[in-house]
Amino acid sequence: MMKRNIMLIIAYDGTRYKGFQRLGNEELTIQAKLEACLSKLLAESILVIGASRTDAGVHALEQVVNFHTENPMPVSEIQEALNRYLPEDIIVKSVFEVAATFHSRYWIQKKTYVYRIHTSPIPPLFERHYVYNLGQRLDLERMKKASQYLLGTHDFQAFTKRKTKKSTIRTIYSIDFVLEGSEVQIYLTANGFLYNMVRIIVGTLIEVGKGLRSPESICELLTNKVRSEAGYLVPSQGLTLYKNYFKREDEFFDQDFEESF
Amino acid sequence: MMKRNIMLIIAYDGTRYKGFQRLGNEELTIQAKLEACLSKLLAESILVIGASRTDAGVHALEQVVNFHTENPMPVSEIQEALNRYLPEDIIVKSVFEVAATFHSRYWIQKKTYVYRIHTSPIPPLFERHYVYNLGQRLDLERMKKASQYLLGTHDFQAFTKRKTKKSTIRTIYSIDFVLEGSEVQIYLTANGFLYNMVRIIVGTLIEVGKGLRSPESICELLTNKVRSEAGYLVPSQGLTLYKNYFKREDEFFDQDFEESF
Repeated sequence: MMKRNIMLIIAYDGTRYKGFQRLGNEELTIQAKLEACLSKLLAESILVIGASRTDAGVHALEQVVNFHTENPMPVSEIQEALNRYLPEDIIVKSVFEVAATFHSRYWIQKKTYVYRIHTSPIPPLFERHYVYNLGQRLDLERMKKASQYLLGTHDFQAFTKRKTKKSTIRTIYSIDFVLEGSEVQIYLTANGFLYNMVRIIVGTLIEVGKGLRSPESICELLTNKVRSEAGYLVPSQGLTLYKNYFKREDEFFDQDFEESF
Repeated sequence: MMKRNIMLIIAYDGTRYKGFQRLGNEELTIQAKLEACLSKLLAESILVIGASRTDAGVHALEQVVNFHTENPMPVSEIQEALNRYLPEDIIVKSVFEVAATFHSRYWIQKKTYVYRIHTSPIPPLFERHYVYNLGQRLDLERMKKASQYLLGTHDFQAFTKRKTKKSTIRTIYSIDFVLEGSEVQIYLTANGFLYNMVRIIVGTLIEVGKGLRSPESICELLTNKVRSEAGYLVPSQGLTLYKNYFKREDEFFDQDFEESF
C-alpha cells in the first residue's frame, strides 16, 4: 500500500535543544520531539526527514520536514494536535499532503539564514535569546563591501570547522544587511552551507565591521582556505533558519491533497 | 549630608517574577533584585521607589525608579555594573542624577500600558511569553467603538478586583489599537490604573470583539459599577508597562547631574 507523504512547515526556538537532528536516545532534539509526538498521534512509528540540520541552539522560523504514514487523519487535525501536544517552543505553521516523490532534503534548492546582532551597549530584553549581544557598533559599509567577495561559487573550506572529504564548494546567492533599530540582521542565501559556515562568515564580517581586518582579506581566505585565518565563531543563539526554496515546486501536489487552514 | 538622588529607567521580562513590589523575604520581585544588587554595589542599604507597581508576570519596557545614596560612583558606572550583575531579564536603559525632590511615584502624571493579543490560530513562537495567545480573530471596529466609552474621567469600580475605600475614579486619556501582522496591540494611557484594571478592560473589549457583548454595554458598566458584569481577567503575560509621563520634567535636573551613555 502506498503511504501518504506529509510535509510540515515548522518553526522553533532552539535555545534548549541539541539541534534538529536526532542524536542518542537521551538527547533533546527537534527531530526526536517531532517523531515521538507524531508516532503517538498516528499510532505508527514515524521517521521525519528535515530539509536542514540546524545546530544546537539555532532557531528556525521555517524548517521543512516530511514523513510517511498510513494513517488517514486529515492534515488540519494533524496540525491542531501537534500544536496542542508539542512543547511551546516548537510550532507547526502548516501541513500539506504532497507527492510521494517529495523529499525535504533532496528537493531543496537553496535556503536563507538570518543572523541577528545586538549592537547597543544596553543589553537586549525580549529578544535576548534570539540575538548575539555584541554591544558594539559596527561599520556596515565595510561589512557590505567584504560580503561582496563571498558572493558566487567558491571553495568555503576556510569557513568550516569540520574536515571533510566531501566538496566544500558552495554558491552564495545573496548577503543582505537590514538595520532594525540598533540590531544588525544579516540574511545569507546559498545552495547549502557547510558546518558552522554561516557563523564563521558572520564572525569574519564582524571583524571587518570593527576595523580589525580589511574587506579584501576575505579574498585571501577564499584562496588560502585556512580556517585559522578566518574570523571567530559567533554564538548559535543569534542564528535562525529563515526560509527554504525547493526545486520542482509545481510537482509538490501531483495527487490529492488537503491544505490546512 | 545631602544624599544623591538617582533615577533609573529599567525594563524587565516579568515572566518569573511576583511583580515589581518587594513582598516577603523569600519572594522573587523586581524591587528585591534591584535593591540587593544596588546595596552590594554601593556598599549601602538601598531602598528603591518605583513609579508603577506591576503585577506578577507583567513586563515593563520603561519603569522608572529612584533611590538615594551617599556613594559618589558615576552614573555610567552604576549602569554598567547593574547590567553586568542583574539577571538577564532585568536591564537598565539609563541612569540620571536628579533633583533631591524627585520621587518616582509622586511625580508621575500618567502612564501607558500595552496589552498584546495573538489572534492567529498558529501559536506564537519568539514572542510567546509576551502575548496572550487567544488564537481567534477579533472585530477591531467593534472594540474601537466600545473603547470610546471608556475615555475621560469615570468611576472604574466595575473594572477592578479589589474592594477599596480609596477613590476608584480615574481618567483614561487614550486607547489606541495597533495591528502588527495578526497581533492586536492595545495601548491605554491614564493618570493611573486600579488593581487589574487594564486586564479587565481588555477582557471586556475582547468579549465585544468576539460579538459576545455590545459596545454599548460598556456604558452600563460605568454606571452599575458591578465587577461581575464586566469581562474576564486576561492573563498577565500579555501586559507590558510601556511609558511613564512625569510632572515638572523641567525640574528633574535642578542640580549637577551626569547623563549616562
